[in-house]
This record gives sequence, C-alpha cells and structure tokens, in this order.
Amino acid sequence: MEELTNLELARGIDTVWVALCAALIFQMEGGFALLEAGFIRAKNAMSIIAKVIIDVALGGLAFYAIGFGVAYGASNGWFAFDYGISTGDLGLGLNISNYLFWFIQLGFAMAAISIVSGAVAERMRLWGYAIFVFIFCAVMYPLAANWVWNPNGWLAGMGFNDFAGSAAVHAMGGFAALAGAIVLGPRRGKYQADGTITPIPGHNLPLASVGAFMLWFGWFGFNPGSTLGAVGNWELIGQVAVNTFLASAAGGVSTMLYTYYRYGQIDITMVINGVLAGLVAITAGCNVVGPGSAIIMGLIAGVLVDVAVVVIDRMKIDDPVGAIAVHGINGLFGTIAVGLFASESGLFFGGGSAQLGVQTLGVVVIAIFFIRNYLFGLYLIKDDRRCASFTRGRECGDRCSISRNRGLFHI
Amino acid sequence: MEELTNLELARGIDTVWVALCAALIFQMEGGFALLEAGFIRAKNAMSIIAKVIIDVALGGLAFYAIGFGVAYGASNGWFAFDYGISTGDLGLGLNISNYLFWFIQLGFAMAAISIVSGAVAERMRLWGYAIFVFIFCAVMYPLAANWVWNPNGWLAGMGFNDFAGSAAVHAMGGFAALAGAIVLGPRRGKYQADGTITPIPGHNLPLASVGAFMLWFGWFGFNPGSTLGAVGNWELIGQVAVNTFLASAAGGVSTMLYTYYRYGQIDITMVINGVLAGLVAITAGCNVVGPGSAIIMGLIAGVLVDVAVVVIDRMKIDDPVGAIAVHGINGLFGTIAVGLFASESGLFFGGGSAQLGVQTLGVVVIAIFFIRNYLFGLYLIKDDRRCASFTRGRECGDRCSISRNRGLFHI
Amino acid sequence: MEELTNLELARGIDTVWVALCAALIFQMEGGFALLEAGFIRAKNAMSIIAKVIIDVALGGLAFYAIGFGVAYGASNGWFAFDYGISTGDLGLGLNISNYLFWFIQLGFAMAAISIVSGAVAERMRLWGYAIFVFIFCAVMYPLAANWVWNPNGWLAGMGFNDFAGSAAVHAMGGFAALAGAIVLGPRRGKYQADGTITPIPGHNLPLASVGAFMLWFGWFGFNPGSTLGAVGNWELIGQVAVNTFLASAAGGVSTMLYTYYRYGQIDITMVINGVLAGLVAITAGCNVVGPGSAIIMGLIAGVLVDVAVVVIDRMKIDDPVGAIAVHGINGLFGTIAVGLFASESGLFFGGGSAQLGVQTLGVVVIAIFFIRNYLFGLYLIKDDRRCASFTRGRECGDRCSISRNRGLFHI
Repeated sequence: MEELTNLELARGIDTVWVALCAALIFQMEGGFALLEAGFIRAKNAMSIIAKVIIDVALGGLAFYAIGFGVAYGASNGWFAFDYGISTGDLGLGLNISNYLFWFIQLGFAMAAISIVSGAVAERMRLWGYAIFVFIFCAVMYPLAANWVWNPNGWLAGMGFNDFAGSAAVHAMGGFAALAGAIVLGPRRGKYQADGTITPIPGHNLPLASVGAFMLWFGWFGFNPGSTLGAVGNWELIGQVAVNTFLASAAGGVSTMLYTYYRYGQIDITMVINGVLAGLVAITAGCNVVGPGSAIIMGLIAGVLVDVAVVVIDRMKIDDPVGAIAVHGINGLFGTIAVGLFASESGLFFGGGSAQLGVQTLGVVVIAIFFIRNYLFGLYLIKDDRRCASFTRGRECGDRCSISRNRGLFHI
Repeated sequence: MEELTNLELARGIDTVWVALCAALIFQMEGGFALLEAGFIRAKNAMSIIAKVIIDVALGGLAFYAIGFGVAYGASNGWFAFDYGISTGDLGLGLNISNYLFWFIQLGFAMAAISIVSGAVAERMRLWGYAIFVFIFCAVMYPLAANWVWNPNGWLAGMGFNDFAGSAAVHAMGGFAALAGAIVLGPRRGKYQADGTITPIPGHNLPLASVGAFMLWFGWFGFNPGSTLGAVGNWELIGQVAVNTFLASAAGGVSTMLYTYYRYGQIDITMVINGVLAGLVAITAGCNVVGPGSAIIMGLIAGVLVDVAVVVIDRMKIDDPVGAIAVHGINGLFGTIAVGLFASESGLFFGGGSAQLGVQTLGVVVIAIFFIRNYLFGLYLIKDDRRCASFTRGRECGDRCSISRNRGLFHI
Repeated sequence: MEELTNLELARGIDTVWVALCAALIFQMEGGFALLEAGFIRAKNAMSIIAKVIIDVALGGLAFYAIGFGVAYGASNGWFAFDYGISTGDLGLGLNISNYLFWFIQLGFAMAAISIVSGAVAERMRLWGYAIFVFIFCAVMYPLAANWVWNPNGWLAGMGFNDFAGSAAVHAMGGFAALAGAIVLGPRRGKYQADGTITPIPGHNLPLASVGAFMLWFGWFGFNPGSTLGAVGNWELIGQVAVNTFLASAAGGVSTMLYTYYRYGQIDITMVINGVLAGLVAITAGCNVVGPGSAIIMGLIAGVLVDVAVVVIDRMKIDDPVGAIAVHGINGLFGTIAVGLFASESGLFFGGGSAQLGVQTLGVVVIAIFFIRNYLFGLYLIKDDRRCASFTRGRECGDRCSISRNRGLFHI
C-alpha cells in the first residue's frame, strides 16, 4: 500500500471528518424535536415532532432536488440554479466529494427550517407547514447560503465572515420564525383583552433537556465541521471547539445570574435558552475570535436572550419556544460581534470598522428577508380554504391532536 | 515524525473511521430500546428496555465467545468455527485490527437481535428471551453473516450484494421476529373471537421518537461505516451517506401521503416506521445505486411498510412495534431491489437478471430460516415449566411488571 | 497537494480522532443528567438537570480559567499553576493542539464533577452546589489529574497506570460524592428512627435508561479517545474498545444473575448500575489487559456494585443514584485490578507485585481526599446562613422545586 499518495490520504482524512461531523449535525434534528416538544403543551407534542420529521424528510428532498443547486451552483453573486448534486467542480477547493459536501450542507438547511417549526408550534396545520418547508429549503435558505458561502456570493466577495452560519442559518431561520409567528397570531388565551399575558409553560422540561443536550452535542459537529476538512486545520479545529464551548458555558452562567437578579429565581427554561444563545452567537466568529472574546460574547448572549424573550412577548408575538430570541436576535448579535471581536479585523482589536460594516450589512439583509416570509404567509392564509393550511389565531391542537384510540395523527 | 509510512497513516485513518462508526452503531441500541418502549404499553416499558440490555450484554458476550468465529473464521462456504477474536488474517484486506473489526461487527449482531425484541414485546419472560439471545448471537446471525460477508461465504462467492445488511441483519432479524410472534401468539385482547382487531396503541410516542432519531442518526454509522475503511473510499462514503438519507426521507414522505390518502389522516407512528423502512430498504444497495433510485426505493418502502403492517395484523400475527414489516419485509424488498436498481448490474439499467437472481436466492434462503426459529421456539414452549420462558398467548406484563414499591424488576 | 508532509497528515488524523471522541465524551453530560433525573423523585428532576448544566457551564469555565493550568502546567510533581490554555509545549508529545487537548480534558473534568451531583441529589441548594463545582473543577480534580497524567506528576513518575481515569476521574468523583452524602445527611424519611430503611425509588426508569445508553455510547469516546491520537495506535484502539465493551457486558450479566440469585428478581435499576460499574472498572486498565481479564473484571464489578449499594445504605449514607458504589468503589477496584490483571506487569501474569503496590498507593491517596471534601462541606454548612447553600438533613425539594405556574426554577 506504499503507493498511496498523500492526496489520497488527505481525502480519506477529510472524508472521515466531514462524514462524522455531518452525522452529528443530523442528530441535532432529534434535539430540535424534543426541545420544542418539551417546551409546549402535551396535546401538541407529537404535532411538533411530526413537523420536525417533515423538516428532515420533505426539506431534505427539496434541498436535494433544487436547494443545493440554488446555493452552490454557478452563481452570479445573487442566485444560481442547478438540479440535484452537481458532479462538476464547485470551486471550493475541498478534498471531499460533492455528495458528502451536500450531506453536511443538508444539516445546515435542516437546522434553519427546524428553527421555524418551534416558533409556529401549536397553531399551524401540517400541509400548510409542509408547503412552507418545501419553499424554504428549495429557495429561501439556499439563497442566503449562496450569498454567504458560494465562492461567487456577493457577501462572500465582500469578506463577510459567517463561519458556521449565525447569519445564514440562525438569523435566517430566526427571522423566518418571526414572520411565521406574526402571521399566525398568538395561541388562544395567551394574551388577554385586558393586556395581561398568561404564560403557557412547557409540559415536559426533562424531555426538553434531552433535546438541549442533543443540540449542544451536535454543535461540536456544526462549528468544527464547518472547516470542511481537517488536513491543515489542526489548530483551527481546536480553536473552534474551545470557543464554541466557552460561549455556551458563559451564556448559561449569565442567564443564571440574570434571572436570579431579575426574578429572585433561576429560570431553568431560560438557562437552556441561554446556553443555546451562546452557541448561536459564537457560530459566526468561532474561527476568528480568541477565547476571552468568546466568553464575553456568551455572557452578552445569555442576557440578550432573556431580554429579547420578554420584549417579544410584550409585543404580543407568541413564540412558544423562544426561537426568535435564541436564533434570530442572537444570530444577528453574533454576526455583528465578529466585526467587534475578531482578533485581526475586529474594531476592538485595531481592525477598524470595515469588517463591522460588512457584517452588519450582511446580517441585516438576511434578516429583513422575513418580510418575504411574512408576505408569503399572508398569501397562504388568504387562501386558507383551498390549502387548508394556516389557521390564524386558532389553536392547532383542537383539530390536530393525536387520535388516541386509533394511534393516528390527525392533520 | 517524517519516518511515518503511508501505511501507518492509512491504518490511523481507517481506525478512526471504523471506531467512530462503530460507536454510532452501538448507540442505536438505545434507539431500539426507546422506540420499542414507546410503542408498547407503559407496564411493559422497562421489560423491553431490559430485553435490549440483554441483547447488548449477553448477546455481545455470545458474539465474542462463539459468534465471531462462526461468522469470520475459516469458512467452507457454509459455516466456520473459532473461539474469541482470531489474531490471524481474516482475508478481508482491511487496515484495521481484528479487534476493531469485531467491535463494528458486534453492532450488526446486536441490531439483528434487537429487531426480534420488539416483535415479541409484552409476552416473553426474561430467561427464555435470554436463551434465545444467546443462541441467536452465537450461531443464527453469525451463519447468515458467514454466507454473506465471509470472503469464502457461498453467497459472497456468487456476487451477492448486501452492503450493510438488508438481508444478513434486517431480513434475518425481521423473519426471526416473525417466528417469535407466531410461536408466542398475540397479546390477550388484541384479536377478538368475533374477528375484530383491537389496536393497542403505544403509550409514549415522544419517547418512541427519541428512539427513532437515535436510530436515524446511527444509520449514518451503519451504512457508511460498512466501507470498513475511508482511504480510497472518499467518493463511496459520500454516495452511501446521500443514498441512505434520500431513501429515509422518501420513505417518510410516501408514508405521509399514503396514510393521508388511505385514512384521511397522517399516522405519525407509521411515518416513523416509513422512515425506518426506507433506511432498511437502502441498506443492501446504498453502494451501487444512484440517488434517483434511492428515492424510488424509499418511496416504495414507505408504502410497503404500511400495507405489510395491515396484512400481518389481519393474519392475526401480533407485532407490537411493526418490526416484521419494517425489517423483515423491507429487508427482503431492499435486497431484491439491488438486482433491479444497481447502476451497473441491475435489471433496469441493462445489467440483465443475474444479479436479481442471486439477490432473490440469497434473501429468500435467509428469510426461510424463520422456520428454524419457529421450531426452536416451539421446543422452548413445549418445555415451558422447566425453563419458565415462553408463555404462549398470555401477557408477560401480568407477571413481569416492575414492582413499584421496591424498584425491582420482576422477571 | 503532494507537498503535504506526513506530519501534517498525522496532525489531521489525530485531530479528527480527538475532536470527535471529545464530542462523544461531552455528550455523556446529557447521560448523567437523565440518569440522575430518572433515578430520583419527580419533584427534583429539573433540579438535578440544572445541577448538571452547572457542572458543564460553571465547571467548564473554572477548568478553563484555572483548572487546566493546575493539571497540565509545569508541575513540581504535586501541583502546578498557569492561567487559561497554555500555548507552550505541555511535554506530552501529542500531534493535537493544546486547545483541542483542553477540550477533551474538559470532558473528564465534567464527568468527575457530574458523579457528585448524583450523590447529593434532592438535598443541596443550587448556589452552594455552584461554589462546590467551581472549587472542584478549578483545584480538586485538576490536582488528581496533575499527579496521574501530567508528565511530571508523582504518580505518573512511579508508573501508575490509569489509562482513562478509574482513579483520577471515577474514584476522585465517587469519593467526593461520599463526602457530600455524609455531610448533607440523608433525605427526610429514608432512614426511620426504628432502624428500618424506606427505599425511595426512581420516578422514571425509561428516562434513566436514555441516560444510561448515552453514557454507554460516550464511553467509546472516553476510553478509546484517551489514546489522544490514532496514528500508531491502530491496534491499541481496537483493544481498548473491545475491553471496554466486554467489561460492561459482563457487569450487566453478573448483576442480573446476582440480583436474581439474591432477591429472586432481576433488578433493572441495578443492571444499569452493573453495566456502568463494569465500564468504570475497566477504565484504568483497558490498555493493558486482555479480553478475558476484561470479562472477569466486569463480572466482579457487577457484583461489587450490588453489595456496595446495600452496605452504603446500611451505613445510613443516602446516595440516591448509587454514584458512590458505581464510581467510587469500582474506580478503586478497577485501579487496583490493573496491578492484578495487566498482561505484562500484573501479579496474575508473572509481573510481580510492584505494579499492584503503585496502583493501590495511588488510588488510596486519591480516595482519601474525600476527607478534604468532607471538611470543606462542613465549613460551608457551618456558615449556612451566609451562603445559603447546604441544608443538612432536609430535602431540597421543599424549597427548590419548579414553580409550576410560572415555569421558573426556584433555587
């Protein structure tokens, strides 16, 4: 076997790395499903799990047939088009096959859409949701990926640094979730006519915790795996893993301190969201910031998510699992924070404001895409009877619960 | 360190790949346990989890002491024998150690036996089950592995393509499950004297969903890991991962559409089984079919499992978790489908019918092994009082439930 | 790419191996959380999960800021000090970056502290626990790691073999757990004035089983990952994985047989602990014993844990999850067993008693550290009103339960 070339060995190494990181990312879908199921009412738990299975199954097929070509086809900077998985050179200079690259990119697409499922929980019918999933994974998310990660994308060309997707995945998903929550309106009974807000607590926090640990675990595929290869990246992978951990830990600790200071009690639901907020915030910059900056970003994220959850609730936007605050707000924060904290190009370390400007421009453009989602949602609702999809202001649970006698799931 | 040879590097790469894929496969046992526990009644949930622990612990020891030698010892084409883990050359041309090869093969053996535990759920005592596990992992499964994967196996010699075990693992386990379900008879109250069938729904679908996501995750070790090495396989691993995903997604989608068309509702229990059916169906051929074929195979598997569950139920064979339909029927289908869809040797792509003939022969021979299991089961039942194992037509739950006050598990 | 040196390739291989094993170890924290939550009463389930999140978040930050330097800084044999993650040569001869080495070491630190959380479950307030976590991860555990794994550590210098930490992690954590359980006293109602013992069974064994399977899975990162590199270790990794499995399987089987023989019933809670006991016992010596020895060690561990649980209970030390028996007693046993069973240096295979002496000395020194924890605990209790931390002899649940109406977690 001495005739093996070093290129063949490098291909082997990078294939092992990406295939297993992709599996870890895939596993996060179980995490999304259980986190969201635990944070809502029991009657709708299987409904949300079904939606996450739709994210994976239907969203995955859409990302295969159309989405991947939109994201990574030959791009004019704004969009591209290609069917299935191209066999040509994607221009990314990787040692892995296009098929394997597709498989890890699939994980990012599924994560983005699974963020939305949480925010629209308990009040969207399955078929309407399925239509949304298809469009989102075929066109909406891939456009953002094209801009940010396609070698010809306009944001990529400007030096936008979104290493593992605080903007392209989390802000994208979080603001789509915002649009969905606004279009659907709140769950019945959440906001009273006299202005009082009635919390609707999660039915099974241990189940949600299983989900949180699965997500935390998967993030160590999500961020380090975004190197897309291990050869030559032995120092970078260590840096990314450590930053990812430190930001999540700091997010958890700052939420504990903040909720204790604010409410006299530690709110464990929020601590879980604080950990996730830290993870979302570090996702864009884990490759360019130092460990001290990662801790500071995590500490900020842990407070930011608490404040955002309250503000969003006061705006009478009903987000049962906090997806908008965790992924939208902290995706926004994390992307901009790269312009502040990056060791070389960041404002705080003498890099000037150029990176900050690009980061802000990029993530704001991606975030305001929520208007597109809002309009698309309104269109679906207008046509409610035909597609029987959205049911504004009403609870899905009334009609979508599991038929207990027959073991069937009523759509 | 410049004196490292490329062979040493290749051994390192393949060891990392196989060790971690084997860990992912091992993790599937948790998935089997929870899926089966969630799909049955609460009173027997811990009983089924105990059985899966027996699959792993006792089955693993049996596969160490006897099974591995039966599967991978020097074979005359039909069987072999050797104690423990041989230190000699197995003739497989791998870069990994025999010990590590044993560890990944262990995962396949445990998967096969864990399929059976689901079909005999709620009505088999632990000691009887333990005897069955020992025999299955020491002799029954290893014989199938010998034929299919031993370099001298008679099916291997005929060009039988069962890449990760649709036949050797899933059909083998699924038809052993069929034998068990027939021998034991149905749970009390399932089939009425007047011919009506009373469904016994699962008690905890979110728990079953945790299990399903764990299985889905583990399959990305199961199928890609069956390359048994990454060096030289950088394209194959991508192909296998993508095919595995696409078939599972298509299986989930086709079950959604079918159950909606058939019952006016999406049956989420069946959607989980549809995803698993797609995974089982692609397992034999994920290395030789294209992505379009994987989708078609998944679509077929997703409907096939729905129909099979109903047919098996009408035959008054009580399979509480659908293991026969998922693993037996789709293992059969997936193995034969290689003869139809394989890019080079398949009937549909100009390869003629030779591959189809071999595939059909091999899987049918493995499937009819269920007769052996059936007779073995009858023998155990005949001798019920001595081994206190099988309790035909009665529910184990009545006597095997957990003693709540003492935290003990009554066998 | 032909200009890649073999050193660069080796760095890539070892980085992939350690990064992914570290992720698997990290995932064990979810396992600890769920196992402990399932084994205690429902009212305190979220409290214990919160404590494990504190283990990870606060413990991780302490291990970053202080602990790593205490463990792996320039050591005089007994202790060291350094801030954060050193960029200098640690003297370990590894191909991975210091950052990545920190990340896998973090997993060991978190495992050690998470052992304690189980033994003090249901009767310790969060802030007091947080103080303990910080001290433990900043100083206590790192000292043990220094002695055992620092190239200059005094035990390392004597040839102490604690491959993946039966002593440094499990005995260390298990005896700290013993100190905590003694200081806090038992839960109200556990031990009656007339000497009777009232068992307080776990509230959710399926949840605990999820945790057990997660731990079992993670152990295949924990032990094989302790090679800290794959290049040159292709045979060792196989040996470690096989020994790890065989000991766990034997532990599960021997507990089944023992509890059936002793109580006429299989105790499934104890079977889970038997599997874990086998894993703990093999952790020190998985690199130097043969598979037959691994099975014998597992068989002993599976009985030892049953006996230890009963003895500890009779001593009126209340350990709700059995952490002292699983990790403390079997960590002690496993470390000493290296001196008996090691293929080259063990007493049973002609190696004389030198290794046995070193093993016994090392683990006993680590174990008697529990006195330090005991005194530290007494100090905290004495000062109870100031830090509001320990509440001797009272149940935390009364004051620490989740406020159901508000979804908040009362500390």
